[in-house]
Amino acid sequence: MSERVVLAYSGGLDTSVAIPYLAEQTGAEVIAVAVDVGQGGEDLGAIRQRALDCGAVEAEVVDARDEFAAEYCLPAIRANALYMDRYPLVSALSRPLIVKHLVAAARAHGGTIVSHGCTGKGNDQVRFEVGLNALAPDLKIIAPARDFAWSRDKAIAFAEERGLPIDVSARSPYSIDQNLWGRAVETGFLEDIWNAPVEGLYSYTADPAQERDADEVVITFDAGVPVAIDGETVTPYQAILELNRRAGDHGVGRLDMVEDRLVGIKSREVYEAPGAIALITAHQELEAVTVERDLARFKKSVDQRWGELVYDGLWFSPLKESLDAFIDDAQRHVSGEVRMTLHGGRATVTGRRSEASLYDFGMATYDTGDTFDQSLAKGFVQLWGLPSRMAAARDARLGGGAQ
Amino acid sequence: MSERVVLAYSGGLDTSVAIPYLAEQTGAEVIAVAVDVGQGGEDLGAIRQRALDCGAVEAEVVDARDEFAAEYCLPAIRANALYMDRYPLVSALSRPLIVKHLVAAARAHGGTIVSHGCTGKGNDQVRFEVGLNALAPDLKIIAPARDFAWSRDKAIAFAEERGLPIDVSARSPYSIDQNLWGRAVETGFLEDIWNAPVEGLYSYTADPAQERDADEVVITFDAGVPVAIDGETVTPYQAILELNRRAGDHGVGRLDMVEDRLVGIKSREVYEAPGAIALITAHQELEAVTVERDLARFKKSVDQRWGELVYDGLWFSPLKESLDAFIDDAQRHVSGEVRMTLHGGRATVTGRRSEASLYDFGMATYDTGDTFDQSLAKGFVQLWGLPSRMAAARDARLGGGAQ
Amino acid sequence: MSERVVLAYSGGLDTSVAIPYLAEQTGAEVIAVAVDVGQGGEDLGAIRQRALDCGAVEAEVVDARDEFAAEYCLPAIRANALYMDRYPLVSALSRPLIVKHLVAAARAHGGTIVSHGCTGKGNDQVRFEVGLNALAPDLKIIAPARDFAWSRDKAIAFAEERGLPIDVSARSPYSIDQNLWGRAVETGFLEDIWNAPVEGLYSYTADPAQERDADEVVITFDAGVPVAIDGETVTPYQAILELNRRAGDHGVGRLDMVEDRLVGIKSREVYEAPGAIALITAHQELEAVTVERDLARFKKSVDQRWGELVYDGLWFSPLKESLDAFIDDAQRHVSGEVRMTLHGGRATVTGRRSEASLYDFGMATYDTGDTFDQSLAKGFVQLWGLPSRMAAARDARLGGGAQ
Amino acid sequence: MSERVVLAYSGGLDTSVAIPYLAEQTGAEVIAVAVDVGQGGEDLGAIRQRALDCGAVEAEVVDARDEFAAEYCLPAIRANALYMDRYPLVSALSRPLIVKHLVAAARAHGGTIVSHGCTGKGNDQVRFEVGLNALAPDLKIIAPARDFAWSRDKAIAFAEERGLPIDVSARSPYSIDQNLWGRAVETGFLEDIWNAPVEGLYSYTADPAQERDADEVVITFDAGVPVAIDGETVTPYQAILELNRRAGDHGVGRLDMVEDRLVGIKSREVYEAPGAIALITAHQELEAVTVERDLARFKKSVDQRWGELVYDGLWFSPLKESLDAFIDDAQRHVSGEVRMTLHGGRATVTGRRSEASLYDFGMATYDTGDTFDQSLAKGFVQLWGLPSRMAAARDARLGGGAQ
Repeated sequence: MSERVVLAYSGGLDTSVAIPYLAEQTGAEVIAVAVDVGQGGEDLGAIRQRALDCGAVEAEVVDARDEFAAEYCLPAIRANALYMDRYPLVSALSRPLIVKHLVAAARAHGGTIVSHGCTGKGNDQVRFEVGLNALAPDLKIIAPARDFAWSRDKAIAFAEERGLPIDVSARSPYSIDQNLWGRAVETGFLEDIWNAPVEGLYSYTADPAQERDADEVVITFDAGVPVAIDGETVTPYQAILELNRRAGDHGVGRLDMVEDRLVGIKSREVYEAPGAIALITAHQELEAVTVERDLARFKKSVDQRWGELVYDGLWFSPLKESLDAFIDDAQRHVSGEVRMTLHGGRATVTGRRSEASLYDFGMATYDTGDTFDQSLAKGFVQLWGLPSRMAAARDARLGGGAQ
Repeated sequence: MSERVVLAYSGGLDTSVAIPYLAEQTGAEVIAVAVDVGQGGEDLGAIRQRALDCGAVEAEVVDARDEFAAEYCLPAIRANALYMDRYPLVSALSRPLIVKHLVAAARAHGGTIVSHGCTGKGNDQVRFEVGLNALAPDLKIIAPARDFAWSRDKAIAFAEERGLPIDVSARSPYSIDQNLWGRAVETGFLEDIWNAPVEGLYSYTADPAQERDADEVVITFDAGVPVAIDGETVTPYQAILELNRRAGDHGVGRLDMVEDRLVGIKSREVYEAPGAIALITAHQELEAVTVERDLARFKKSVDQRWGELVYDGLWFSPLKESLDAFIDDAQRHVSGEVRMTLHGGRATVTGRRSEASLYDFGMATYDTGDTFDQSLAKGFVQLWGLPSRMAAARDARLGGGAQ
Repeated sequence: MSERVVLAYSGGLDTSVAIPYLAEQTGAEVIAVAVDVGQGGEDLGAIRQRALDCGAVEAEVVDARDEFAAEYCLPAIRANALYMDRYPLVSALSRPLIVKHLVAAARAHGGTIVSHGCTGKGNDQVRFEVGLNALAPDLKIIAPARDFAWSRDKAIAFAEERGLPIDVSARSPYSIDQNLWGRAVETGFLEDIWNAPVEGLYSYTADPAQERDADEVVITFDAGVPVAIDGETVTPYQAILELNRRAGDHGVGRLDMVEDRLVGIKSREVYEAPGAIALITAHQELEAVTVERDLARFKKSVDQRWGELVYDGLWFSPLKESLDAFIDDAQRHVSGEVRMTLHGGRATVTGRRSEASLYDFGMATYDTGDTFDQSLAKGFVQLWGLPSRMAAARDARLGGGAQ
Repeated sequence: MSERVVLAYSGGLDTSVAIPYLAEQTGAEVIAVAVDVGQGGEDLGAIRQRALDCGAVEAEVVDARDEFAAEYCLPAIRANALYMDRYPLVSALSRPLIVKHLVAAARAHGGTIVSHGCTGKGNDQVRFEVGLNALAPDLKIIAPARDFAWSRDKAIAFAEERGLPIDVSARSPYSIDQNLWGRAVETGFLEDIWNAPVEGLYSYTADPAQERDADEVVITFDAGVPVAIDGETVTPYQAILELNRRAGDHGVGRLDMVEDRLVGIKSREVYEAPGAIALITAHQELEAVTVERDLARFKKSVDQRWGELVYDGLWFSPLKESLDAFIDDAQRHVSGEVRMTLHGGRATVTGRRSEASLYDFGMATYDTGDTFDQSLAKGFVQLWGLPSRMAAARDARLGGGAQ
């Protein structure tokens, strides 16, 4: 019996052509696996049929939208995951989920090789392969674009030569990846980082400069998880979908940045993530109200490391698990409501309330009802500043000190 | 000869009344010191005269606007200083500068006591007193609001009783502090954190929802310092002033947040800081282009700590100095231009260019001219993921591992 | 009915005298609570009787040795808790446990005030009071040494005047605190930090320079918990007790350091902690074998923060809880055996073995059986160094770069 | 004219054989460069002659001992550089220095290729190549052991076949690297991590269990640099040499550990570094006395990162430079004397004194002369614990809180 290679299949030109190409290069049977992580576009049935038409011996389509929302996007909300303070890890979050389904398909169908369409200069090859090595170290990996120097032009020539049932005419000038959590656009004229993005790049968000009335939304969280929108209970998937729509209508969540890739280069990326940005903004504010100061300060380093790890392809790593344990504990009381205005590209928090609030009106007010004992402050200030005072006195004595 | 107390003087009701009150309480002569950090409002000559009219034996007014911009706001730009990821340290930055001038006045006039108007539940008492203790540990400190439970109502009664030349009728429902770097508003109906801010709160920024044409600005940085705007050389003071005006016209830099005070309570604050937010946004993007990845990742922890220290009143601390040395070194190549669009409450970077850029078109492009050797990636990916792979294999062997 | 004050009682001069003194100062009935955390010395029954003889209306003695070992010392092992890289938190760990029993006694006996013997310049006042405020914010706190300027000389005079049944003749020149986890000695001639400690200071450890045969011990850990010594199952209490004896016989665990107190001053401390140092040393080495690299590197910052928090009196803080969750997760596979030689003041690991080891002979060996594919390294090295290379090229181009 | 390859030459079997082998493989002329970093052993003249005898067209020997001490070991002292809290970076520190001299030789002799003898599974290949890429990205690199799968057995066969003037009989069962800063031993029976090291492994240190009288030494530091020993001025090289001898005589600085290599595997290493451990121990204690608390706490994260970077081959990286700037600033006042006892494998600090000390007898003493105002403490304790108290009250109200 011949070997079987499980291919991460998108339905697009490159991975469609890869089906016969892989079969030829490896002598193996190809099993195509398409995972729906909310990328939209074609019907899964049509995608499945195309894989078979291109020569796959099996084609699986997996609706993983709820799983993606609950198991991958939610942890990102709880970690306020913004790589370089901005990028909500759109592609980075979907890769470990796809890996999981590729491994499951390899196990179900006797696959011994896994294949993906990533190049050798991006992050996604790392995310796929480190994930595969962690979950299934026995599986071999082939990345035709990298390992066989397989390019888009070669793919088109190959498709035409073999008469594959693929439309090779439509060609975006950009490289695009999209899913429930957002959309990434790169290459093309964006590679000149002085060029501004153009309106035509965007698909998840309306032009924020376009005139329209503001939208107000109240998001309810329970232990860091969005559980209701405007009072209606939602699943994580529904929460993200709804906020993609409503925040997207107001142009929220557009990002244009130069980012540090794991492979050591900087690249220019344009993102749209209306739901992600709205949800993380609301979550951060609810943390400000419900999380104690020292915990909040330390959690920033945890959140930063979490985002770096996921960006760097280390979803299935021991450190990621231990950071998750920290975050789980820190979210116990992140419950309550946040009211936001969505308008003109901004998601602005205008109110927050929580049973678990650490904001104490009596302590905070300067008005009637003040319960803060100001006489305590003098001693606090003195001892708080004592090390600085002693160091300044030393510096003054020896010269070379604080100005 | 009687003792002399140097009073941090604003010209307002509370500190005006404090002049005779302090004289009475301490038997000392009062020297009023007003420092112009760009807060605007009254003429300094009028403020000086009011202090004398209220009984001060001396009144000094100091124009410290350039000093504030160059020595306090600039380091904040280079540290991307945003406390809790948001607040650009408006009041926190001005306190050490005022402290410096209070000490200078005490030395010039033989003062042995310093007085300030802060309460015992805010951050500013800490910033004043820790700074004073560092620079001049011999000076005694009196804070009437805290130490004598001196309240606004008492101040008004005292003013009327003594017939002081002060208008006690105008009373803002809010507590406001403002300077070149921004404006802070608190108390009043904002103490209910579910209440949204109202348009009347704002003074540095126009309503972002108001229709107007976008403004485009190019900011030039040299080693992390803004040195030109739209090609015209500017001083730090001019840079901030100009961006306050232009970004403020588009409603950039409004913030509404619940924040962790050093004294251990959470408080609700509304800020406006158009210039600060525009400059820090531009600076962050230029760092993304010119700062190497590992340095950028570590600098985030340095920046966070810098912001916490300054917020917490530790401007004159040894750690602050050593963090500054790190930041200075890290800024050596943060030079170049950033183009931003100011519109609808947003300051959006649309282009960046730099002689010192680490973005390398040849490495980044997927097009003709690609100089990245993709064959190197396979080995990288394997060794990068090796520790995770070995841990996952161990976990699989023993149970309880990565999902 | 009169108020009742619950006193943390040691049986020594100061707290014995405090019984009638507190009664006099407050008009309250005094309930003495002595907690056995392994400090040794007198029988608890005798201590209880002395409290009653001094006028306590109730006297409770609590054997908390197992609880101290399991709930306070064990977490310190798992966190490799060494403040300033050295001090194993001897006193700091016992305070929250004593606080817990003081609160329980207050609840049981209707106490409304709690009292402790700490001064106002040490760390322990903070640990007691922050703990009490967290567990029982309704209880008032009195610290006679601090609040009534109550000194040892006053205590002796008071005891003699009232004829209290206490031996006031024995007076150590040092201030000593000891428990199962170690022993702390301060003050006296040690306050001159150029003076070396003398042999007479020590009680838990023999002179390491003394000639004797080495002792070899094998400690078995399960998930970071020591569960057997030389193959015999032990409770946490037994493990610490046994290693205090055996490591103490070889002079292991003596420390002499200048340390940063929370109240802002530096102090000189001499510690003995033979069991603690031996256990933490063994635990660190087992972590080196079983914990993945990225997790190990990050855990160092978690461990440092854990130690600082506990030192700083924040045992009952949200951050401490979340750090514990991280550490719990990170300990899942810290299981196996460590062999140590105890000799001449050193606890030296000489062997380690573990089912959960990530040390892989096949990967590590340079001999027959090598399974590491060296061809992967070239690509790894290239991409690993790419950001540095690009930065160095930029620096060379612009000047001012790496030497 | 043929190409020229610059070979990092040790004088030993492998690199001697590499001379003709490289010439054969590449057709290039070989230039041997031997750098004296204090590794001892043969005379440099003899090493030079051997290179020529093996066919090198040029052979350079560089005495870099003072440079190594001053430019590489000193920064490690100031950073308290101990990878994984233990390993003083013996080999890691020498590699960038050797790289620098290889590049200089390539520039002097028209070399276009650099070669080193490292394998593909160790750290040193990374240190060499990342350094070379940073300093001279134009130079090609060949590592015969890795790139040509060149092994020791092949080297011996090749040497015998060609009749090279090398003694192939002496073969250590271990792989050893040594220099002024210490000595590393690996492989052989140590690859079983349950095996204890044997006395025969060691060369820089005497058996610590051997009976002898203690040695007392006083080290004087100026701004973190050791400048005198027992009152006699020393260069950095002399300081390390002298302490290697004196601390080595007492068995100080032996380490046996399992360590995380950069290439993703764990390895077992035995080190001896008597001078390094003695100097770092003394330096840490002087920092405890002269560095302010917040700075000391943050410096631990800087020191950890510095050690990781140097271990990981990133000496010539932007982050390393910025960390150095931080450390330089933090060392300004690390001046004074530390007295240590060297005995039985321990380097024990027994006294410290400094003009720049932040230890203040008046603040620390409990005796006559106490200048600490204890009345300040109550307010400090209350506000210090306020966030914890509020969080605990919230947790109690909602359940699920601190125990």
